[in-house]
Amino acid sequence: MAPRSPFKTAAERSEEREAKRMAVLTAAVRMFNARGYHQTSLDDVAASLGISKPTIYHYLGNKEQVLIECLTIGMNQLLAAAEQARLIHGLGLERLRAFLIDYAEINMNDFGRCNILTANEALSPDARETIRLRKRRIDATLRELVAEAIADGSAAPCDPKLASLTLASALNGPSRWHRPDGELPEREIAVKLVDFLTAGLAPR
Amino acid sequence: MAPRSPFKTAAERSEEREAKRMAVLTAAVRMFNARGYHQTSLDDVAASLGISKPTIYHYLGNKEQVLIECLTIGMNQLLAAAEQARLIHGLGLERLRAFLIDYAEINMNDFGRCNILTANEALSPDARETIRLRKRRIDATLRELVAEAIADGSAAPCDPKLASLTLASALNGPSRWHRPDGELPEREIAVKLVDFLTAGLAPR
Repeated sequence: MAPRSPFKTAAERSEEREAKRMAVLTAAVRMFNARGYHQTSLDDVAASLGISKPTIYHYLGNKEQVLIECLTIGMNQLLAAAEQARLIHGLGLERLRAFLIDYAEINMNDFGRCNILTANEALSPDARETIRLRKRRIDATLRELVAEAIADGSAAPCDPKLASLTLASALNGPSRWHRPDGELPEREIAVKLVDFLTAGLAPR
Repeated sequence: MAPRSPFKTAAERSEEREAKRMAVLTAAVRMFNARGYHQTSLDDVAASLGISKPTIYHYLGNKEQVLIECLTIGMNQLLAAAEQARLIHGLGLERLRAFLIDYAEINMNDFGRCNILTANEALSPDARETIRLRKRRIDATLRELVAEAIADGSAAPCDPKLASLTLASALNGPSRWHRPDGELPEREIAVKLVDFLTAGLAPR
């Protein structure tokens, strides 16, 4: 076997860079979630990783750029989940439930939580607009899935706008009360929440 | 008729003081909700009322004390609604629904919204603890009402903890998306939301 070259390949360099970026983002998002965005400084994030603030600037940019990246990861996960749900053959309610369960689960992970816990006011107007448009796409997709389920009779007739807003709010909840060290796995909590919202409070 | 004395009675002075306090609190809570707590200064609040910051200090204290007062008003409204719901004779689900509708409506008013929009991190540890305990009392009451409705069979069997957390999250939603100048009155939105949560997504 040829001795390993001390020089990294382009692929290795790119992978390493990505791993470093994710390490910074994960450390940052956890602090944002735990302390609040305003109460977190990049110095604290850097210190927690044993690196310097300029290293964070190098890989990601300033604090707002770090936040935007964190928010984008969470939103992209939600958009990917919506794409996946769309591919399910079956009734509208099945597609809707599949998306809702993923939605609830994603909102319990670090990046999903950040999207819910960090108020838009933290961002500059331009960034706020970008984030707002992407959130809107997620809301619109959820509303479409609700409307489709009503249309094929698999969901009860209701106002799709109010229903999708209520479902989203209900499933954003765990970002506030869920503890990652809790008894139940995230997926199980997500299923229970969606079952409750599917069945409703009143007995059948 | 005797000429009106230029000196105010104790009752008049107390009423005037309360009116001034409420004017400050209302101006403050609207700015906190619109811009975020950290982005609001008492100078802005004072300016919007044509008064000086020391006047606010005189009636209410510093910015944190103003916030605590705003949060307390919202929480006291929720606690009063829970007391009222408890007095309803009938099935558990009726009491629960009465509370949920009030809960949703209160969370659309300025003080209710503030409780949801302002992250606890904004507060000093002592104040945070006080607020946390009061929120806990509201959560506990909601959970009791759910458990009672399950116990008398008027609500479907479910996990009261998960159900009450989900209901609360769903009904906190309008604090983020409701616009006071919207088409529907707050009460009507509240009833629609609770109807949706009572019936569930699936057709009956």
